[in-house]
Amino acid sequence: MIAVVKPGASKQQIDSLLAWFRSRGLKTHVSEGEFQTIIGLVGDTSQVDVDLLEGLEIVESVKRINEPFKRANRKFHPADTAVNIGGVILGGGNFQVIAGPCSVESPEQIVCVAESVQASGARLLRGGAFKPRTSPYDFQGLRAEGIEFLLEARAKTGMPIVTEIMNAAHLPLFEPVDVIQVGARNMQNFELLKELGQLRKPILLKRGFANTLKELLMSAEYIMAEGNENVILCERGIRTFETYTRNTLDLSAVPVLQELSHLPVIIDPSHAIGVSRYVPQMALAAVASGADGILIEVHNDPQNAVCDGAQSLTLEQFAHLSEKMQRIREVIAAR
Amino acid sequence: MIAVVKPGASKQQIDSLLAWFRSRGLKTHVSEGEFQTIIGLVGDTSQVDVDLLEGLEIVESVKRINEPFKRANRKFHPADTAVNIGGVILGGGNFQVIAGPCSVESPEQIVCVAESVQASGARLLRGGAFKPRTSPYDFQGLRAEGIEFLLEARAKTGMPIVTEIMNAAHLPLFEPVDVIQVGARNMQNFELLKELGQLRKPILLKRGFANTLKELLMSAEYIMAEGNENVILCERGIRTFETYTRNTLDLSAVPVLQELSHLPVIIDPSHAIGVSRYVPQMALAAVASGADGILIEVHNDPQNAVCDGAQSLTLEQFAHLSEKMQRIREVIAAR
Amino acid sequence: MIAVVKPGASKQQIDSLLAWFRSRGLKTHVSEGEFQTIIGLVGDTSQVDVDLLEGLEIVESVKRINEPFKRANRKFHPADTAVNIGGVILGGGNFQVIAGPCSVESPEQIVCVAESVQASGARLLRGGAFKPRTSPYDFQGLRAEGIEFLLEARAKTGMPIVTEIMNAAHLPLFEPVDVIQVGARNMQNFELLKELGQLRKPILLKRGFANTLKELLMSAEYIMAEGNENVILCERGIRTFETYTRNTLDLSAVPVLQELSHLPVIIDPSHAIGVSRYVPQMALAAVASGADGILIEVHNDPQNAVCDGAQSLTLEQFAHLSEKMQRIREVIAAR
Amino acid sequence: MIAVVKPGASKQQIDSLLAWFRSRGLKTHVSEGEFQTIIGLVGDTSQVDVDLLEGLEIVESVKRINEPFKRANRKFHPADTAVNIGGVILGGGNFQVIAGPCSVESPEQIVCVAESVQASGARLLRGGAFKPRTSPYDFQGLRAEGIEFLLEARAKTGMPIVTEIMNAAHLPLFEPVDVIQVGARNMQNFELLKELGQLRKPILLKRGFANTLKELLMSAEYIMAEGNENVILCERGIRTFETYTRNTLDLSAVPVLQELSHLPVIIDPSHAIGVSRYVPQMALAAVASGADGILIEVHNDPQNAVCDGAQSLTLEQFAHLSEKMQRIREVIAAR
Repeated sequence: MIAVVKPGASKQQIDSLLAWFRSRGLKTHVSEGEFQTIIGLVGDTSQVDVDLLEGLEIVESVKRINEPFKRANRKFHPADTAVNIGGVILGGGNFQVIAGPCSVESPEQIVCVAESVQASGARLLRGGAFKPRTSPYDFQGLRAEGIEFLLEARAKTGMPIVTEIMNAAHLPLFEPVDVIQVGARNMQNFELLKELGQLRKPILLKRGFANTLKELLMSAEYIMAEGNENVILCERGIRTFETYTRNTLDLSAVPVLQELSHLPVIIDPSHAIGVSRYVPQMALAAVASGADGILIEVHNDPQNAVCDGAQSLTLEQFAHLSEKMQRIREVIAAR
Repeated sequence: MIAVVKPGASKQQIDSLLAWFRSRGLKTHVSEGEFQTIIGLVGDTSQVDVDLLEGLEIVESVKRINEPFKRANRKFHPADTAVNIGGVILGGGNFQVIAGPCSVESPEQIVCVAESVQASGARLLRGGAFKPRTSPYDFQGLRAEGIEFLLEARAKTGMPIVTEIMNAAHLPLFEPVDVIQVGARNMQNFELLKELGQLRKPILLKRGFANTLKELLMSAEYIMAEGNENVILCERGIRTFETYTRNTLDLSAVPVLQELSHLPVIIDPSHAIGVSRYVPQMALAAVASGADGILIEVHNDPQNAVCDGAQSLTLEQFAHLSEKMQRIREVIAAR
Repeated sequence: MIAVVKPGASKQQIDSLLAWFRSRGLKTHVSEGEFQTIIGLVGDTSQVDVDLLEGLEIVESVKRINEPFKRANRKFHPADTAVNIGGVILGGGNFQVIAGPCSVESPEQIVCVAESVQASGARLLRGGAFKPRTSPYDFQGLRAEGIEFLLEARAKTGMPIVTEIMNAAHLPLFEPVDVIQVGARNMQNFELLKELGQLRKPILLKRGFANTLKELLMSAEYIMAEGNENVILCERGIRTFETYTRNTLDLSAVPVLQELSHLPVIIDPSHAIGVSRYVPQMALAAVASGADGILIEVHNDPQNAVCDGAQSLTLEQFAHLSEKMQRIREVIAAR
Repeated sequence: MIAVVKPGASKQQIDSLLAWFRSRGLKTHVSEGEFQTIIGLVGDTSQVDVDLLEGLEIVESVKRINEPFKRANRKFHPADTAVNIGGVILGGGNFQVIAGPCSVESPEQIVCVAESVQASGARLLRGGAFKPRTSPYDFQGLRAEGIEFLLEARAKTGMPIVTEIMNAAHLPLFEPVDVIQVGARNMQNFELLKELGQLRKPILLKRGFANTLKELLMSAEYIMAEGNENVILCERGIRTFETYTRNTLDLSAVPVLQELSHLPVIIDPSHAIGVSRYVPQMALAAVASGADGILIEVHNDPQNAVCDGAQSLTLEQFAHLSEKMQRIREVIAAR
């Protein structure tokens, strides 16, 4: 950490600042320039309140040198993390498509979708059992029963399953689930993240719709700091002023996160754009950006879906898209 | 709800759409204009997926007529709600200042701050026991002990206390607390909201930093739908592109929420702006905007505060500000 | 246009509203539903102030049925527009790469870059002569001389040239230029747009960094309303809260604009992301999204570039990227 | 400027970087810490591309020490600037209200509004002659005639007039105007700013709806660098995701700009919120925030206004508000 002192500061003020730093266990390196004094700080600076420091009368500005995430940081873990999901490997060069309906509705529905998307190339099945809804009057998911139906589909197809958790109290129900998803609205539900850190099961962590990429990595760090290193990062659109789309898909998440972290990065084009007819172009772009996987909504009958039908592809649309994605992936992987 | 049909739609297509609506239990009123057909829908439209409808080939656009919140809606409850907090009334013309440190640090600290802010005019005491922090390596609050110290300060001063909950599993610890705060990051932690709806204790609900005012009201609705009508809405800054301030305080929340809802609306200028020397001007603006209360951070020694010292006022600064706020409030209330 | 009347409105109030509409030359179609009255308005509604209407005491809400752009609208012009730029066709299935340095620096530099990018597959040459800079103390471009050097490069390579205009008073200098670019900051400089509408030369119109897609189309409409239909739309990143990248590339612009309009849509990944090492992944994503072209910064010596070197690819990097882009384009075009 | 070198950089790499800096005429001060090397740069760093520097392999991060604005900077001009507008002083403790209609419509209208707002306490008259409109089909203002009508109102009332310019070619028409306004969409029309810098007339510079406060100051700098120091800064709302209001009024502009700059800061609540019934609460908040002035839309007949009637107050509403503003200002000024 570096603190730049304002030009007019007196020697006494600077000494008092240095003493304050040392009282916090930090070593100080002072560099007196022609125009300003710069203080380098070494030690555990994580407890220093940058905003407070910048608020002091004699401090011009403060800069952290190191990113505040450690376990998620590629600097300390250069090789890509490849997550093993019941035998399906995601990351480290292994591209995977996770497909399925927004909500699990019945055993027939989920088995039908699972078999179809599997035939089209998906290796993992998604489906919502617990549904976060803006309105308390909207359908909240089949809950425990939804997980049972997903397990039925897994039994039939062999596809590992991904489903969202909303409450740590439900963890026992998620015991047989392959990947636990944390939704955008819970990305900074730190109490939930800590509990998921106790598991060794892969966690699919979605970026909050107004969270920075650094905050996403800090939330991954919450899980990893507890010992669970199987984290998959997922970009699903951020909130902007644009109104033709539900959210704005931020594909820069792919190169930036891949540089900063060793964790796999996947893209959810369905929630990002929210309009099914725009999803294929966004999905192809996501593959071309170098994402490690795609999470996509597919429904056997979108017009009658219980929720988010607007953004779901039909089985046929998905089959067609899947083939294109495969061909784009080949071009990308050739590099 | 109104659906506008595209110009070229055939009679058969329109009939099929009408049948689809009726299969959902809705009554339809068709108005055939010179250039377009408009379908009015009556009944429980809350289950209709607007995005899906807009995605249909023959539908031009869809518009909901009524706001999706009911219990929070001023239409169905014209009079202001005044919340009684251990004898202190907030709302319905009763303006209150809630003051205290970001984090509870020790019994001495919280009692000292409580006595001072009370002498300066605050009627409610705030203090963080459970602290949501972006980094797992940052101070997470004194937790249960912090609540004990707050209770000690209440015993000494008689001020009701406000403190944040992060996990429904901690509810037993909050039994003696006067107002439970839901932080910005948990505004859409729907499972937590539902549990707080089971209580009859006042809930201070902070707007998420990228949530719309409608979403804030929908989250209040989650609490109220379970039976707890004692909800206080709080604006605490939204995330924008501006970097000189931590967040951007959106004071339009005051007139808009007061029009849409009967619930009291308070402002937290400290978190919104994040820089203590800018807080007084923002606090005065908040009072002048007609807010029902102010939630403000005050610390006996901001430079050595455990967290968020940067945005805390000193006891003296608060005393000075409090007097100004009182005078502005008098001007406003005279209307 | 549809106006929904509030439930409690009296017959007299509604009649007064109808009279007000008719006094503006609009035909009214009234549909009285069980719960609300809906007024359909036919005629030239472009002069009606929607916000004012919504502000009236008896009006619940107002909705425009038609998009306010006409000449840019695909509804009235279903076939793709293909723009002919000195023999190079862009749009209507013809994908083109426009490459070159941020700023023109010398005849040697621009000729060197032009020959290299041409050899790698670019068909159009870009280069800044007039440079919009946030600071008055930054390099403002070679201005008239810059255009001369571009013309020299065109003479040597045969590549048509694209360069930005900042002031209608400079139009005589742009007479020999093939495509005139309007930068993001001038997207709503309506006086400039009107003057460009007088020409018949292709205009490359960049989206302002906080403008909606609808506003981009309205700005295209300003040019087209004057008679110039050769407009190329360009997405170059929008401003969000994210700080790891300069802006956020909004690739949803591609499917949305291609649906709403017949004009070609190109992507500028260089300005969007602002960091050269992230540009290739974004450029490939842009091609996969179905863009009609890519506008990309390439420099012979980015480290010593006069401006925006940070986002420029080297000649070698561009050659490598160009090949990949070509292969992705083939996959996309096969659809 | 400070550059922090990455931990692993070799001596040779660092020497090469130092030589590169020196070749740009900068003096370098190297401070070798235990963990990292820090390079302080002294001299004219305004030509250094920060983004490029951060993109170099061995550079960890770069930080500018000084704000890039000079003439607008309070550091170099500690006393408040008070602008003299035909005898009316704005800034430096002198609070003023600028009121008038969005568009000038007729001599009768503008004289009527002028006389009424003057009687209610406004000292400056605003009115649009040239109107920037999103759509080319919307009313574009009375243009030259509008200025004539404003001059008529000035002749009748003695109030100095404020009106917007959209094109430097119109400058001769603005010769008799007292204050020239630059609208939000032209805040970064640098060519226009340079021409206004040639004048000595006060310029009212509105913040672009997605521009940072630093960018606003840099645009003021464009005007001041040419010699015109009579700049008034105006916040008029920024674009966010919220949809109940037209824009989000960012009142933090007041304390932040007043700290960074000596120029007067005024607030336009009408454009910020866009709904007349919310304007009074926002205007009072603006006064309480310490703004040097308020720019507000008032119309004799908002329901029949040619544009932006939705956000205009009636003459009576303004009279009532003006009195309240005066009383709030007294509380603020007493500090």
